[in-house]
Amino acid sequence: MNELTISLTPKKGHPMYEQIYNYIRDEIQKGSIKAGEKLPSTRALSVHLGVSRSTVDMAYEQLLAEGYMASIPCKGYYVCEIDQLYKLPPAKAEQEETKEAKSPKYPYEFTMNGIDKDGFPYNIWRKISKNVLNEDDGTLFQLGDSQGQESLRKEIAVYLHHARGVNCQANQIVVGAGNDYLLLLLHVMLGMKWKIAMDNPTYISAYKAFEKMGYQVCPMEPDDKGMDPEQLKLGEANLAYVMPSHQFPLGSVMPIKRRQELLSWAAEGEDRYLIEDDYDSEFRYKGKPIPSLQGFDSHDRVIYLGTFSRSLAPAIRISYMVLPKRLLKQYEKQAKSFSVTVSRVDQKILEVFLRDGHFERHLNRMRGIYRAKHDCLLNELRSIHDICRVRGENAGVHIVIEMKNGMNEQEAVRRAKDMGVRLYGLSDYCIKPLEKRGIPTVLMGYASLKEEEIKEAVSRLKKAWSGF
Amino acid sequence: MNELTISLTPKKGHPMYEQIYNYIRDEIQKGSIKAGEKLPSTRALSVHLGVSRSTVDMAYEQLLAEGYMASIPCKGYYVCEIDQLYKLPPAKAEQEETKEAKSPKYPYEFTMNGIDKDGFPYNIWRKISKNVLNEDDGTLFQLGDSQGQESLRKEIAVYLHHARGVNCQANQIVVGAGNDYLLLLLHVMLGMKWKIAMDNPTYISAYKAFEKMGYQVCPMEPDDKGMDPEQLKLGEANLAYVMPSHQFPLGSVMPIKRRQELLSWAAEGEDRYLIEDDYDSEFRYKGKPIPSLQGFDSHDRVIYLGTFSRSLAPAIRISYMVLPKRLLKQYEKQAKSFSVTVSRVDQKILEVFLRDGHFERHLNRMRGIYRAKHDCLLNELRSIHDICRVRGENAGVHIVIEMKNGMNEQEAVRRAKDMGVRLYGLSDYCIKPLEKRGIPTVLMGYASLKEEEIKEAVSRLKKAWSGF
Repeated sequence: MNELTISLTPKKGHPMYEQIYNYIRDEIQKGSIKAGEKLPSTRALSVHLGVSRSTVDMAYEQLLAEGYMASIPCKGYYVCEIDQLYKLPPAKAEQEETKEAKSPKYPYEFTMNGIDKDGFPYNIWRKISKNVLNEDDGTLFQLGDSQGQESLRKEIAVYLHHARGVNCQANQIVVGAGNDYLLLLLHVMLGMKWKIAMDNPTYISAYKAFEKMGYQVCPMEPDDKGMDPEQLKLGEANLAYVMPSHQFPLGSVMPIKRRQELLSWAAEGEDRYLIEDDYDSEFRYKGKPIPSLQGFDSHDRVIYLGTFSRSLAPAIRISYMVLPKRLLKQYEKQAKSFSVTVSRVDQKILEVFLRDGHFERHLNRMRGIYRAKHDCLLNELRSIHDICRVRGENAGVHIVIEMKNGMNEQEAVRRAKDMGVRLYGLSDYCIKPLEKRGIPTVLMGYASLKEEEIKEAVSRLKKAWSGF
Repeated sequence: MNELTISLTPKKGHPMYEQIYNYIRDEIQKGSIKAGEKLPSTRALSVHLGVSRSTVDMAYEQLLAEGYMASIPCKGYYVCEIDQLYKLPPAKAEQEETKEAKSPKYPYEFTMNGIDKDGFPYNIWRKISKNVLNEDDGTLFQLGDSQGQESLRKEIAVYLHHARGVNCQANQIVVGAGNDYLLLLLHVMLGMKWKIAMDNPTYISAYKAFEKMGYQVCPMEPDDKGMDPEQLKLGEANLAYVMPSHQFPLGSVMPIKRRQELLSWAAEGEDRYLIEDDYDSEFRYKGKPIPSLQGFDSHDRVIYLGTFSRSLAPAIRISYMVLPKRLLKQYEKQAKSFSVTVSRVDQKILEVFLRDGHFERHLNRMRGIYRAKHDCLLNELRSIHDICRVRGENAGVHIVIEMKNGMNEQEAVRRAKDMGVRLYGLSDYCIKPLEKRGIPTVLMGYASLKEEEIKEAVSRLKKAWSGF
């Protein structure tokens, strides 16, 4: 074939070369120009169509690049064989709406992962954001250290030492976008040789993460001091996930003796570790915070996990882990090649926020806000002390309610729902049904509710649970 | 013991209860007060010390919470047994500096993952950041959808359709902080039953990620069209990682026939997928971009990976994957519980950036910037065309140089280094030594260099490589 009659129309946004390309491609796709057929030379086609040769060159290059034709030296251009042709379907006028089953909203939601919306230091955060962006010379937009920037890690190390008694250097800290991500990184780092002991009930999203990663999880029912080291010794677990400062969701604080026993258990094995999830240790209403397990660990066996999602805002996707020194080589070898997941802009904002004392002030303020809500809730609940008993107070932003009027957990949750109050059954946080604990228990997270809402909600609970 | 003489000094920052707590704790730690000993009642101690009873109560509560003593009903407070005591070591005056082997800097670095620093749209990005933060009512600081916000995913779907011919709905998109993270998520989602075919050489960080996750990777030496489906059929791989638009690092573009063969290979197996990494398809200097493999896939077998790290800035940790519809259930079941890794503030900024056409304008601008550098580099290299041949041009931000003066790769890289020019040997991107390809090859990433620097660097290369 030496002639192709293509009707070209000068049209904005449709360059000549593209019209030629489209025409030839369509002809090949329709089979009008067959595989093996020779196409006109660029010179011949440009003369034929009355366009410049470079226009035809461009169209041919595109067709060559996409494989519609091939160039055979000294012979010319030939149509390639294409078994089966695909065309892009036309753009859809509208995206289908995502169908997601939204859970119903209740007027009084005692959600377990809420925060006080007004408590977030918007103005400071915005101000630092602006300064950071204004002062930046472009380096913030370069990919940084896969562990997180050293200057941020240093600030975190200082904070952790003062506030949590954690002993670490900046090179032991790995910054990541959320705890789930850090658990993924640990998974890649440590491999599959782990059986993981977890409290039952526990922080269910960590359990889900371990389960999805394929680990065998050994659920252990804690007593009122937390995970029982005796039980741990009898089992096969070589990694224990614990929350000594404030067990989630039961709210117990692990006594020092128990902590030492856990550390001894870890130190006794060749390859045993404790993951200490210190998720909400910032909020404690009586006395000063209890130092972390990591701070007592002289055998280098604790992997400490912390987050700013709880203390600042869930959308601030910045968590960190402190690795024991003995795992640093393994981190370098197995996980250091995974790029950092927190943007350097956010890292810088947080660094300044910590460095200039804003975080400390923020925590003190939040402690006040949460303490007031906590006291209000406890005070209101006194009016139904014959129906239920409060546990796990003094810390965190949720409390544990034990039913003592014979109502079971499902019934208590359902009746509360009927009155527009959403609280959560303990079994939502269980890996498997509890064996020892027989008391029906529900959980109330109060962080996101206002005091008036708490008062109204408890008066509704009174109606919901009375006269059973 | 019924008396404890504690010297209390009124001191700011050291409340009375803390002094009492500290004293008793230290005495227990030193062994001066022994396990099993009875402590004075709170009433007795408060009278003895002349402080209020609530002060002593607080100290005791802390000691109880930390497990130094126990309260026995109707009997009083007793010191607990503590096998071995740990104390927090004093704060270190200074953090040890992280010791990291920094690689030496060269005046002319043809890095493979650089970007043009001045090209980043700082002003627009800052402006949108400020608006987003100013207009926010607090919802941006709540944890959002684990897939990324739907409004952002819709913008990405529209962009992908127009620019890359990708056919997808917002519910097929998962937003994540970088490709490494998305590969981790795929790993959790798909499990371990995969043998992964990868080009050799390839994008080495994806290879490392798969390797660290424990997958068997089958390296396949591509021909000039990319991965060979015939080789794929002979092997055991059931997942193939391909870069049809621009193979990294060789720069080849996969012809349409080859694409169809790959899609057929995937469609023929019960459970086979293609991962299409479309890492830098935005930058193409001749003709229009070649549509994605995903757009031709009528069997729902392509997992499409894209990133804004390349096109915007590496520190913008926003990547995304488009899942085939058949994998959506598995995503829901296995991976949806992992919280999103990109902050909602960043998601919102990007959404506005896309929605208001800034991204399109940015890409057009960058294409111009990179094209100029590309043309400059190619033009300069003409002066050493007797020494080396250029390949993989026309797209991306790096080129492939084949040595034809008998110099091997190591020698070419070393001699360039000696002249202050850093470029990279092809073997840095190889999973194992190449069998077929015999030509010594080096790679030059030119995105971060200025034109004058490119000119000077090439004149140095000329000296480095001449007279061999």
